[in-house]
Amino acid sequence: MPDFRIILVSPKNDGNIGAVVRSMGNFGFKDLCLVTPCDITEEAYKRAKHAGDILRSARVVEDLDEAIQGCDLLVGTSGIITYGEKHYVRIPITASQFAERTKECEDTVAILFGPEDTGLRQEDLMRCDVLVHIPSSEEYPVLNLSHAATIVMYEIFQARPRPGGPRAASEMEKEKLFQFFDDLLEAVNYPDFRKERTKVMFRRMMGRAIPTKWEFHTIMGILGDAAKKIKRLESERK
Amino acid sequence: MPDFRIILVSPKNDGNIGAVVRSMGNFGFKDLCLVTPCDITEEAYKRAKHAGDILRSARVVEDLDEAIQGCDLLVGTSGIITYGEKHYVRIPITASQFAERTKECEDTVAILFGPEDTGLRQEDLMRCDVLVHIPSSEEYPVLNLSHAATIVMYEIFQARPRPGGPRAASEMEKEKLFQFFDDLLEAVNYPDFRKERTKVMFRRMMGRAIPTKWEFHTIMGILGDAAKKIKRLESERK
Repeated sequence: MPDFRIILVSPKNDGNIGAVVRSMGNFGFKDLCLVTPCDITEEAYKRAKHAGDILRSARVVEDLDEAIQGCDLLVGTSGIITYGEKHYVRIPITASQFAERTKECEDTVAILFGPEDTGLRQEDLMRCDVLVHIPSSEEYPVLNLSHAATIVMYEIFQARPRPGGPRAASEMEKEKLFQFFDDLLEAVNYPDFRKERTKVMFRRMMGRAIPTKWEFHTIMGILGDAAKKIKRLESERK
Repeated sequence: MPDFRIILVSPKNDGNIGAVVRSMGNFGFKDLCLVTPCDITEEAYKRAKHAGDILRSARVVEDLDEAIQGCDLLVGTSGIITYGEKHYVRIPITASQFAERTKECEDTVAILFGPEDTGLRQEDLMRCDVLVHIPSSEEYPVLNLSHAATIVMYEIFQARPRPGGPRAASEMEKEKLFQFFDDLLEAVNYPDFRKERTKVMFRRMMGRAIPTKWEFHTIMGILGDAAKKIKRLESERK
C-alpha cells in the first residue's frame, strides 16, 4: 500500500475542509496538505468531528511545488472529463480502477483536489501522472468537494493491503524513462508540433499502468537501445 | 434496475439534507422522503446547489410507515456493525455487495438513513429486509450522513450499465502494436532468451493502461518508425 497525501488546492469553504478531514479519519488517512486555503474557523473543526487532530497537524503551504515534495506519483481529480480522444490531458481512470491499480505500489502518492468552483487548473492537471474521475450523472456531474474526496478515499480503503506486491518505479526512474522516450522521438525525427502532446500522452499512459521497477527498466532499455542504435548508424553513414 | 427512494429519518441538520440532495442529483436519484426532519432553511438549498428541484419535490411525512408505502424492499444503513452472530439485526452486507445484488431487480427499493447522532433505531432496523454497511476505519467508523448516503448512491450508480468513455483500442489494433513492439525488439537485437518475457510484460502493461485508439496509434507509429529506421540504416550500410 502506498503512503497517501491528500492535497486540497485553494479550498474556499472551510466547512468542506472539515468534512474532508472527517472522511480522512473514517478511512485511515492522516497526511493532509492545504495549498493557500481559506481561513480555517471553528466550522472546520466542528465538521471534522473526532478527526480534528488531522486538521491540527495539516501543513499549510504557499504553492503546489511545496505540497508535493517527496511524492512519487501525482494524481489529479477532475469532475469534468473530455471524451475527445485527443484531449489527452483529461482522459481519466475511475476512482475504483485507480484504487485497484495503486494498492500494490509502495510510493508516496499525492491526491490533488481543486477549488470547489473551478477545480484544478489546466496547468496543475498537466503535471499529474494520472487523472481520476468519479462516474456520475451527465445531467449534474459536479460533486461537492468533500463527497469527491470521500469516494476516492473509500475506494482506496476498499482496495486495502495485500502485502508484498512488486515495487513501483520511483520518480527518478520515471523521469529517466521519459527522457529515453524523448530521445527516441528525436531519433525518429518525430514532428516538433506533435511532440509535447505525445510526451504528455506517454506520461499519462504510463501513469495509468503504474509499472513496476522491473517493467520500467525493461522498457527504458528497449527505447534507449533503439535511440542509440539509430544515432550510431546515422553517424556511421556520415 | 430498481426504482430507489431515499428516506432520511429525523435528520437534525438541514445542511446535511442539502448535501444528500446534491448527491442524489449527481447520481441520478430523484425520489426523496423526509420523516420528521428539522426545519429546512436556505442552508439546505445552498448545499443542494443545482439539485434544488429534488428538495422542493421531496415528501415530508410524520412516520416511517407513510414513508415506505409502495416499496418492495426496505434497506437500512448502519454505521455500527455487530459481528456476533446472535446480533442478527446488525449483520450487514457492504454497499458494493448491495449495489451488485440489486441491479437486476425491478422492485421499488427504499434506502433508510437514520439521524446524525444516533442512527436508525433498533425497531426501524428490525423492519429492514437488508442492512447495508460502509467499510471504514475501526478507529473512527462513523461517517457523516451525507457521506454515507453519497457512497451508497455512488455504488448503485457504478453498478448500472454505463456507456464507455473514449473508445478502447480493438483486439486487432492491439495485435498490431504488439507486432510493432516485436519488430523493435528484433531491430535492437534484443536477446532471444528474454524476448518472451518482455513481450508478455509489454502486453500486461498496456493491458493495465487500457489505451485509447489514439494512444495505440501514436505509440505504434513511434515504435514502427524506430524499427524501420534501424532496418533501413542497417541495409544502407551493407
